[in-house]
Amino acid sequence: MEDRIIYLLKKEQGYLSGEELSKTLGVSRQALWKHIQSLKELGFDITAVPHLGYRLISIPDRLYDFQVYQGLKTKDFGKRILYFNSLSSTMDMATQLALKEATEGTVVLAETQAKGRGRLGRIWYSPKYKGLYFSMILRPKIALDKASIITLLAAVGICEAIKEFCALDVQIKWPNDIMIHNKKLGGILTEIKAEVDEVNFMVIGVGLNINNDKRSLISQATSLKQEKGGELSRLGILQNILYKLEVNYSLFKNKGPLAVIDKWRQLSLTLGKRVKVYSHREHIEGEAVDVDSDGGLLIRLDSGLTQKVIAGDVMHCR
Amino acid sequence: MEDRIIYLLKKEQGYLSGEELSKTLGVSRQALWKHIQSLKELGFDITAVPHLGYRLISIPDRLYDFQVYQGLKTKDFGKRILYFNSLSSTMDMATQLALKEATEGTVVLAETQAKGRGRLGRIWYSPKYKGLYFSMILRPKIALDKASIITLLAAVGICEAIKEFCALDVQIKWPNDIMIHNKKLGGILTEIKAEVDEVNFMVIGVGLNINNDKRSLISQATSLKQEKGGELSRLGILQNILYKLEVNYSLFKNKGPLAVIDKWRQLSLTLGKRVKVYSHREHIEGEAVDVDSDGGLLIRLDSGLTQKVIAGDVMHCR
Repeated sequence: MEDRIIYLLKKEQGYLSGEELSKTLGVSRQALWKHIQSLKELGFDITAVPHLGYRLISIPDRLYDFQVYQGLKTKDFGKRILYFNSLSSTMDMATQLALKEATEGTVVLAETQAKGRGRLGRIWYSPKYKGLYFSMILRPKIALDKASIITLLAAVGICEAIKEFCALDVQIKWPNDIMIHNKKLGGILTEIKAEVDEVNFMVIGVGLNINNDKRSLISQATSLKQEKGGELSRLGILQNILYKLEVNYSLFKNKGPLAVIDKWRQLSLTLGKRVKVYSHREHIEGEAVDVDSDGGLLIRLDSGLTQKVIAGDVMHCR
Repeated sequence: MEDRIIYLLKKEQGYLSGEELSKTLGVSRQALWKHIQSLKELGFDITAVPHLGYRLISIPDRLYDFQVYQGLKTKDFGKRILYFNSLSSTMDMATQLALKEATEGTVVLAETQAKGRGRLGRIWYSPKYKGLYFSMILRPKIALDKASIITLLAAVGICEAIKEFCALDVQIKWPNDIMIHNKKLGGILTEIKAEVDEVNFMVIGVGLNINNDKRSLISQATSLKQEKGGELSRLGILQNILYKLEVNYSLFKNKGPLAVIDKWRQLSLTLGKRVKVYSHREHIEGEAVDVDSDGGLLIRLDSGLTQKVIAGDVMHCR
């Protein structure tokens, strides 16, 4: 109901009489008034003037589920959003929901996370109302060794969404960092629940700096606001990301990993660079020449041999 | 306290006076009486005769945590057991505990499972008090592509325990079936929670037919009772399995996968056989020649080429 009220008031761009509004919505004036009150509590500035009706003055910078649904172009992704003002970690909540059979495309979103995490248990700093912090459940029917592709696919989707919405040249640092001008804009965390045979479900976590001010960012990090020179619509970016994630997920399902990897190569900041990779128990150095169909990074060592890295931290050498 | 009472009564093999018992345990006669009552409720047959004291007549065929602890030779495995008379699935409960930081070696055990499951969502039938149904949490610091080794390792441990305890010639059908005389005795389910980079935790589920009667078994299955011709101590088998699992886990951690794989080869029913493997999207046929260091099965095709299978169902051809 709240979404429809906002939709109608937005469309009207002026006063809409309570009588008309309640008639359109099929609710009593009293019920309408209650919905308006709860919208006000959510931060929507709505004035009520006798004989004129209601008017929407401003919309809060929030990512309420019903706002995200409005205008969302996806089929499944983000069609069920669980919104939290604050959460320990969207990953943990999404995992719990996935264990309870939540469907593919279910999104857990928080305005801030007390214990947001990145890869390998690292902290992801989640300042309130500044960034996008969400986790989405996927249930791909793939073998466990193909799971890395999903990370690549997510990175491609996020880059495409930002490019289109913000007209900024973002790139991917293998495996999962979203970069602008060699600074980190965001990251993707992929968690997997699997049998040895196959993936049960995956949770894709996205952390993206959007309207962060410079002083709240470390020197190797940036935000879209910093790069663009002004605030951006977190809502619009989220909707675009969900859409592009779905597009690339379909591409993967219909055309296989190579279609995704081709796009990934185009967006890669890592390929062609000399890199040091700190992986599980070793570190290797060489030129990043390609990714393979499992999402592994192929490094040409100085010896001329090519070595594959499944996971690790990449440092681009100058 | 219950475990100590049982221990003392067992050792005495006759009447033990309430006075002596409460003195040894450092509790009042009243408290002792309460503990005896709760032991009786658990199924322990204890008689109390005035002026003589308490005597243990019989021990129920249950797998109570405090019974398992008694005489358990492990360092960590099974040192914390959560016992349930009935549970939906020990896998689900263990996963929830692992998400809440339960330590390595924690065991969830049930006398029956309403929704016990095997690989790929198949049902594992868990008749009450007849078999062993438990799940154990492991936290190996390994990359995701090494996870299959844990399944092999568990199969080796279970086979060794049954061989020693029951003097029966059990073998392993790749990847995870425990077999006697070409019939299935049990299975292992390995579930993984991971990042793309590394394993967060694993849950090893064990389902084993022990005292099942013939009429409750399908034709391709068997139980230890059927093979041995008499009932066996589920408690003793469980303690031995936990011990052998820990031994082989240590072996893997200290000596690497090959030490485990060497043992696995010796116990394998599959190697050297002509097999059909139904894997993710294909099925292949050939001779099972070896397993590699990732736990994959190597099949020599009729063309002479060797193909590796990560996961799948094996059918041994006659």
